[in-house]
Amino acid sequence: MAPKSFSASIARLLRPTHTRSQTSTTAQRHYSVAPNGTVPPTKQKYVPTKGTYPKGFLVSGTHVGVKPTNTGTPDLAFLASETPCAAAAVFTKNKFQAAPVTVSREMLRRRENTGVRSVIINSGCANAVTGKGGMQDAEQMGLHADKCFEEPSDGKGSRTIVMSTGVIGQRLPIQKILNKIPLAFNALGTSHEHWLAAARAICTTDTFPKLLSRTFSLPSSPSIKYCIAGMTKGAGMIHPNMATLLGVITTDAPVAPALLSSLLTNAVNKSFNSICIDGDTSTNDTVALLANGAAGGKEISSDSSQDYYSFQGILTEFATDLAKLVVRDGEGATKFVTVRVTESPSEAAARKIAGTVARSPLVKTALYGKDANWGRILCATGYSLISEPGLPASDVPEIVPEKTSVSFMPSDGSPELKLLVNGEPESVDETRASQILEHEDLEIVVRLGGGQAEGVYWTCDYSHEYITINGDYRT
Amino acid sequence: MAPKSFSASIARLLRPTHTRSQTSTTAQRHYSVAPNGTVPPTKQKYVPTKGTYPKGFLVSGTHVGVKPTNTGTPDLAFLASETPCAAAAVFTKNKFQAAPVTVSREMLRRRENTGVRSVIINSGCANAVTGKGGMQDAEQMGLHADKCFEEPSDGKGSRTIVMSTGVIGQRLPIQKILNKIPLAFNALGTSHEHWLAAARAICTTDTFPKLLSRTFSLPSSPSIKYCIAGMTKGAGMIHPNMATLLGVITTDAPVAPALLSSLLTNAVNKSFNSICIDGDTSTNDTVALLANGAAGGKEISSDSSQDYYSFQGILTEFATDLAKLVVRDGEGATKFVTVRVTESPSEAAARKIAGTVARSPLVKTALYGKDANWGRILCATGYSLISEPGLPASDVPEIVPEKTSVSFMPSDGSPELKLLVNGEPESVDETRASQILEHEDLEIVVRLGGGQAEGVYWTCDYSHEYITINGDYRT
Repeated sequence: MAPKSFSASIARLLRPTHTRSQTSTTAQRHYSVAPNGTVPPTKQKYVPTKGTYPKGFLVSGTHVGVKPTNTGTPDLAFLASETPCAAAAVFTKNKFQAAPVTVSREMLRRRENTGVRSVIINSGCANAVTGKGGMQDAEQMGLHADKCFEEPSDGKGSRTIVMSTGVIGQRLPIQKILNKIPLAFNALGTSHEHWLAAARAICTTDTFPKLLSRTFSLPSSPSIKYCIAGMTKGAGMIHPNMATLLGVITTDAPVAPALLSSLLTNAVNKSFNSICIDGDTSTNDTVALLANGAAGGKEISSDSSQDYYSFQGILTEFATDLAKLVVRDGEGATKFVTVRVTESPSEAAARKIAGTVARSPLVKTALYGKDANWGRILCATGYSLISEPGLPASDVPEIVPEKTSVSFMPSDGSPELKLLVNGEPESVDETRASQILEHEDLEIVVRLGGGQAEGVYWTCDYSHEYITINGDYRT
Repeated sequence: MAPKSFSASIARLLRPTHTRSQTSTTAQRHYSVAPNGTVPPTKQKYVPTKGTYPKGFLVSGTHVGVKPTNTGTPDLAFLASETPCAAAAVFTKNKFQAAPVTVSREMLRRRENTGVRSVIINSGCANAVTGKGGMQDAEQMGLHADKCFEEPSDGKGSRTIVMSTGVIGQRLPIQKILNKIPLAFNALGTSHEHWLAAARAICTTDTFPKLLSRTFSLPSSPSIKYCIAGMTKGAGMIHPNMATLLGVITTDAPVAPALLSSLLTNAVNKSFNSICIDGDTSTNDTVALLANGAAGGKEISSDSSQDYYSFQGILTEFATDLAKLVVRDGEGATKFVTVRVTESPSEAAARKIAGTVARSPLVKTALYGKDANWGRILCATGYSLISEPGLPASDVPEIVPEKTSVSFMPSDGSPELKLLVNGEPESVDETRASQILEHEDLEIVVRLGGGQAEGVYWTCDYSHEYITINGDYRT
């Protein structure tokens, strides 16, 4: 290929091209419940039909066929910044970190969160537990993405964040991927369809692409319209630290590289670290934040400024909305459930209890069965803070059975349904309970009666489909 | 009823009675997958057709109809010692302890583990989270059982251990139960059929009664044949601290009351605290050990004697075999899986890792799908020791990816199948892997390559039936 300037690429890519056929809004579970690849009717409302995207970012979704059975769905996402930008990422704490996690972490450390040009992501294979060969594959993906920019080296190595998602323990078909990276670069564009194609390309068992965008302003530059846009994927092996997910958030607001990590970490703790599909923390989880400052204005350079806190709020809310989409599309999920623990002596206890209820297979199967089995909610609450087997029973002063209450908050705005009040069961109207459980959305509130702190998790139910999907994932 | 001496009752009960019809070997899931109530053919081998039971213990299983839908299955177990005996119990650490847990713990504390006469157990309702009324119900069950013995008070209150299992948050139909306690007492007997009826009566979603018995001798009295017998029930809400289970173990060996608790605790940690069905720790778990000394011989009175260690070994092995039966009958289970973590720097780390793998929904669904998805085993290993969300990543020196190996140990005696060796994936023969996964039994070995310690858990798979059972448990 003849060298081309990046701007020329952009200009070309804003014209309709043959890659347009890859940007349809279809999504498909690779275990193919819906062989025609369409988004289930109940999920279509979560797929945006338009968006406003940050200046200076270009994206594409390209078909590689990482899984041999994938003959046409995009599975390579390329995201580029027109100029080198600030970037940070939060990675899984799993001790078996996938090769792209190791490579990307090291890259950001070496670059001190500056000078990043792109993110390259494949689905279909996680490049996790793949030994030294897998490390080389991840490095190659980054280097081949770098090459597209034809930028002179600054001696700090790769400028690309690499992510992979899919089956663990298998090597990538690396040559197929490398061959397609230039095509993916040429396919870059800024339209809503480009963003949707990229969001589709990172999906695995997701039934719909998860893409959000919005605009905001900052106190010091009220006349500038900033944009934030991001994509994420689920849909199983989802649990804090983090959920098996990949996420990329981009903004054209100017943020000092040194502040990006703390902004992202704070946002992730209240969003991606507050969702649970199945309690399994994956090997590949990565959420990256890129800020290129393309919209201009004053840089957020102090972590005690009004702009900083304002942006923290915007980022946290945005990340929370992205994370909720992951729960909406939990493997086999039919319910979206908010677990809110209130009146707790500490936020840590409230979060731990909410997370335990959200993870409980018995709570999740009861939700699937539309069974108001609040005893299981209490049961999970009661074991959430206990000591390990073999150790003496701990005191757990945070939970006082006589002060604990449980209610369902219906999503239709009708009054709360009290199930347990101060440790005494209510006489529950089972008909009303069933009506409440017919809705897709439900909020479970556990009040500890012992403080002011609160913790929230978002979870879904366990259905037959979860078993089907995960009993037969690799085939 | 006219007063009768206990011995007279025994004599009468050794004759066949009308209660015999209750002692068939049928078992039934109350969600009625098998409406005819028979033990599934694949499980029949786990139901003993004979047994040798400890002297001086009498048992019965009686129909009450705690669940209105139960029109004939025994759901009240009565277990009595001919003489007051030593007893200890291990209880759930769940903070919402069921009323019978509170009542029984207090009774054993007050009696200092002596002078116990009986255990009364109902299934069909857990009497958990039932407030003050539930406490009174549990106390009444104990007092009504006491009354049957017509023994003068020794000022220490009840002599009965009370247990309940079933739905949480509903009150017992207490009058129905109290009315049947004298009948249950009159039905007491020592035959294998009596023991089997009692074991059936404590079942909930179990598909078969779990009953074991064996004989042993102690070094100081080699000519005396002692017996140990016990029963337990599963089959969901099973996780350490403890599994939702009830268990009663009886022996006619003489053991000093002061030693019983530590003997039982040690045994439970390696047995009932090493199994996982779904990761939910119930509100009602209780395992009791009763020793009446009816077989004579020298009392085990020192915890540094040969007899003590000998009995500890026998009890631990016995409890382990009972606990394994719970896993064999895990809700919807089609697999029995041993997770063994070896070469660990500490037993605590090995146990934590084994428990995390055993609990992972993704590992369990892959086992159900007969999918050799060892990546999920690694993934669960990798997140088993990480810090809570929001806290900094911990170092986890116990796990070194480059030293970690994973193998399947087939149950047919064929050589191990290596999946991962020192962090590098093996080229796995998928056909052979599938053959190994066709068997009901499987052992997963994770070698950490960093020490000598070992930890073992027993678990089962997650199937569609687990969802069916638990999506519709209360109806």
